[in-house]
Amino acid sequence: MASIFTKIIDGNIPSYKIAEDDACYAFLDINPAAKGHTLVIPKKETDYLFNLEPDELSGLTLFAQKVACGIDRALQPIRTGLIVEGMEVPHAHIHLIPIYKPSQNFSLGKKTDLDENQMKELARRIREEVRL
Amino acid sequence: MASIFTKIIDGNIPSYKIAEDDACYAFLDINPAAKGHTLVIPKKETDYLFNLEPDELSGLTLFAQKVACGIDRALQPIRTGLIVEGMEVPHAHIHLIPIYKPSQNFSLGKKTDLDENQMKELARRIREEVRL
Repeated sequence: MASIFTKIIDGNIPSYKIAEDDACYAFLDINPAAKGHTLVIPKKETDYLFNLEPDELSGLTLFAQKVACGIDRALQPIRTGLIVEGMEVPHAHIHLIPIYKPSQNFSLGKKTDLDENQMKELARRIREEVRL
Repeated sequence: MASIFTKIIDGNIPSYKIAEDDACYAFLDINPAAKGHTLVIPKKETDYLFNLEPDELSGLTLFAQKVACGIDRALQPIRTGLIVEGMEVPHAHIHLIPIYKPSQNFSLGKKTDLDENQMKELARRIREEVRL
């Protein structure tokens, strides 16, 4: 059965899409740890990040870099950090989490309440700044 | 002034070294969030991970993959996750943190007490399993 992320890539589950290329897809995390928290995933369903082939992992990382730079330009955090834990969905994913202050609690879990309009607006602002 | 990580790479500050190539260095974090928690750094001093040139970031990621696979072979966690926050030392670093159970608190900060002999033994076991 397709993972929830594959359903998102295929458009069968809606997402706040940020960017897409042949091999990768980025969209807002609906349980944001911070404003602009984005998930970056390979289109190929692989559970464990480090089981990706080296060229796939490299491509995913460079795609994530472009998305992170877009987040930085759009939202002006101090920087964007990342977390890969991957115990919940068996489809590798990189969490890109903007860091707005040094004391920010940098871990996963919903810490920011954003309504649908705010999420749409964040996605639009980041999308405009991502240069693939 | 050289960053603390550059001093480690140069051998001016001792470390529990795991692996090294021309561009990257890996060593145990002395404040381990879990047994085998390893830091992977570029030898070039760059503060922000996403400011690395694409080829440097790609090389660092693939080096980290080899180290993570070594951790997995040596210590048999469920998998190895990663965190990049980088607000403390202005020299980009990837935290590789083995995940031993689904409920593990996956965040930075010392959560495991290990004495010098245990750290040496962990480094030896991982080092033996890293294939560059």
